[in-house]
Amino acid sequence: MGCIVQKFGGTSVGSVERIKHVAARVARVWREGHRVAVIVSAMAGETNRLINLVHEISPAPNEREVDVIVSTGEQVSIGLLAVALEELGVPAESCLGFQIKVLTDSMYSKARIVDIKPSYLQNILDRGKVAVVAGFQGVDENGNVTTLGRGGSDLSAVAVAAALGADVCEIFTDVDGVYTTDPNVCANARKLERISYEEMLEMASLGAKVLQARSVEFAMKNDVAIHVLSSFSEGSGTYVVKEEPSMEKVLVTSVAYKKDEAKISLRRVPDRPGVAAKIFNPLANAEIVVDMIIQNMSQEGVTDLTFTVAKADLRRAIEILKPTIEELEVPEILTDEDIAKVSIIGVGMKTHAGVAAKMFQVLYDEGINIAMISTSEIKISCIIKSKYTELAVRALHDAFDLGEEEGKS
Amino acid sequence: MGCIVQKFGGTSVGSVERIKHVAARVARVWREGHRVAVIVSAMAGETNRLINLVHEISPAPNEREVDVIVSTGEQVSIGLLAVALEELGVPAESCLGFQIKVLTDSMYSKARIVDIKPSYLQNILDRGKVAVVAGFQGVDENGNVTTLGRGGSDLSAVAVAAALGADVCEIFTDVDGVYTTDPNVCANARKLERISYEEMLEMASLGAKVLQARSVEFAMKNDVAIHVLSSFSEGSGTYVVKEEPSMEKVLVTSVAYKKDEAKISLRRVPDRPGVAAKIFNPLANAEIVVDMIIQNMSQEGVTDLTFTVAKADLRRAIEILKPTIEELEVPEILTDEDIAKVSIIGVGMKTHAGVAAKMFQVLYDEGINIAMISTSEIKISCIIKSKYTELAVRALHDAFDLGEEEGKS
Repeated sequence: MGCIVQKFGGTSVGSVERIKHVAARVARVWREGHRVAVIVSAMAGETNRLINLVHEISPAPNEREVDVIVSTGEQVSIGLLAVALEELGVPAESCLGFQIKVLTDSMYSKARIVDIKPSYLQNILDRGKVAVVAGFQGVDENGNVTTLGRGGSDLSAVAVAAALGADVCEIFTDVDGVYTTDPNVCANARKLERISYEEMLEMASLGAKVLQARSVEFAMKNDVAIHVLSSFSEGSGTYVVKEEPSMEKVLVTSVAYKKDEAKISLRRVPDRPGVAAKIFNPLANAEIVVDMIIQNMSQEGVTDLTFTVAKADLRRAIEILKPTIEELEVPEILTDEDIAKVSIIGVGMKTHAGVAAKMFQVLYDEGINIAMISTSEIKISCIIKSKYTELAVRALHDAFDLGEEEGKS
Repeated sequence: MGCIVQKFGGTSVGSVERIKHVAARVARVWREGHRVAVIVSAMAGETNRLINLVHEISPAPNEREVDVIVSTGEQVSIGLLAVALEELGVPAESCLGFQIKVLTDSMYSKARIVDIKPSYLQNILDRGKVAVVAGFQGVDENGNVTTLGRGGSDLSAVAVAAALGADVCEIFTDVDGVYTTDPNVCANARKLERISYEEMLEMASLGAKVLQARSVEFAMKNDVAIHVLSSFSEGSGTYVVKEEPSMEKVLVTSVAYKKDEAKISLRRVPDRPGVAAKIFNPLANAEIVVDMIIQNMSQEGVTDLTFTVAKADLRRAIEILKPTIEELEVPEILTDEDIAKVSIIGVGMKTHAGVAAKMFQVLYDEGINIAMISTSEIKISCIIKSKYTELAVRALHDAFDLGEEEGKS
């Protein structure tokens, strides 16, 4: 008899029927004798409905109040799920952020979890009940309601699992696990049985949408085993766990891609100390994340500087760069939104040479030009023209033997 | 510069437009330099929407969870109103039941307020902000969310006013004050300028819908002056205050009526000690409120017993009475849903004789038969046939000179 934490997202609790379905699923695990805590998101669409209401009143609403408003979505979900569980004869009790309490800092709309005391939840589990926990929400030390931002409910689930020392944190989503690549691009993409935190982290930041990076980070730091599986079908999904020796035998685990970045090139930038800081500091202050940066070899005291930002930030970035550009007398700014980032990921890379070379060769063989390259110990990313994305993903997926064997699936 | 508590009901905050309207109204008072706390209800329709969701899952949901769910309605309202106030340049901060904290007992869905500490609210007001308080909700001593039941937001407002020692508790409704009777029945009904707590209490329990009895009770015990006024128009409404000597000069203040009761008559009940207890205890245990009770003179050891209950409880009351009826061998039960209760109210009655006699005479003159009578120090109620309700109300309103003088309104 273990302790199991389960998390169901907004789609999984998107209607009364689905909430009943989730209740049945939770009931089954509870009836097997496990201690169960369930984390739920707001019903699909509810958070947007609430945000639209606020924006009808103010284009730039007070963030403290936005958190008070949007956190009600999860509050409704936990109440409904607790009622649905009791309807099945399973004793259940809903828990809000302030009750547990999920202590966060005071960064409204993107708060960080500081601490969760296990005692409130333990007490519910000790009484034989299922604890139904509101995801996404917490309170700061003054009792103000906070929310955790994007993917916040996953983070809540991992944090609750850590606090309870749960055996596993099951994240139910609309896919049935983590794949070697996007099955919409490669028909023979294969579901991974196990994957390391490090690989999952890279995949999350490189475009795989199944888990947010900070939930994985939190799980890694606190040694919480995550199990990603489908809320709409049965069967096992993908375990995200500590790196195991066997994992290094596989060179590449997956291929990821991302189309939401844009490239900015500054031509003939003076090549002297402090120039890079002058360019990137204002962007950082405006909270614009710069991803890849390339600086060419200097010639005649000037150099070309190329970097990528989120497409959504492109216009704002250009505005912010303008004064610096004028001051530095940079003659030309080029932008390109028509790009994609294709990446291969695998902990095995650390101990094997030649993986990068093979990736470049594969892209070259397909006639795909590489505009930028960035690497870490366990991933290699290339910026290419957007239209080649699927071609590149399929070629890499095949070249590194990631696909389902024929006649096997 | 005073301290003013304002309460806006669900209709007053029923849309984004109306919330903006309320914000403008609150802003005006705040700009005059007053300390302001505002209590709001859920947006009209929201509580019913949430209750319907719950009932799709369970016909008899856990009441703790229902409170968790329905209390979100007020949480959304306070966030939106705080945002609307800030949009007008008025600093505001929303407050939830657990934050303030509004300590209640643990009777979910109909909790009683035990205590409100003023410090949390005082702190907000001291910082020059408007405190926007969620009505209807509290927490018990274990931090469980509770709701106060019908008219709960009025009660929240009065309790906050008491805690803050406010100069006045303004209750904004869809009517512009308390009238001598229902203006839909008597075209010349007059708005009262002042009325005593005691009269308001009787009026509330006798059918006037403007304020719930328990809010008035709380105000009376804690000496909170209530001002009932319209959220849709300007101008003064009705003050509900401590009885003043001048009030006794008026014999009758108002005429009330109620059509939601039903009459049960038990014929030939054995007239011996303990029989009444045997009949009424099971009803009390089922939380069925018995209003008026009449027992006829005993003849040959048997008597007739007649009493009224809420129409909604009639079927259930009959079911509950059945075993007792059989045990006591009562030969006949009669029920009548076709009744109304008409009442006259006034603190002046206490010191004047003949008011009851005049009421009976007025009804007699209109050919209206009186089925039951009940009196207190400051009210007289008669049960009559439902179809005579309006006739009776108009006749009494005229006979006691309650109407607007002609050419004056």
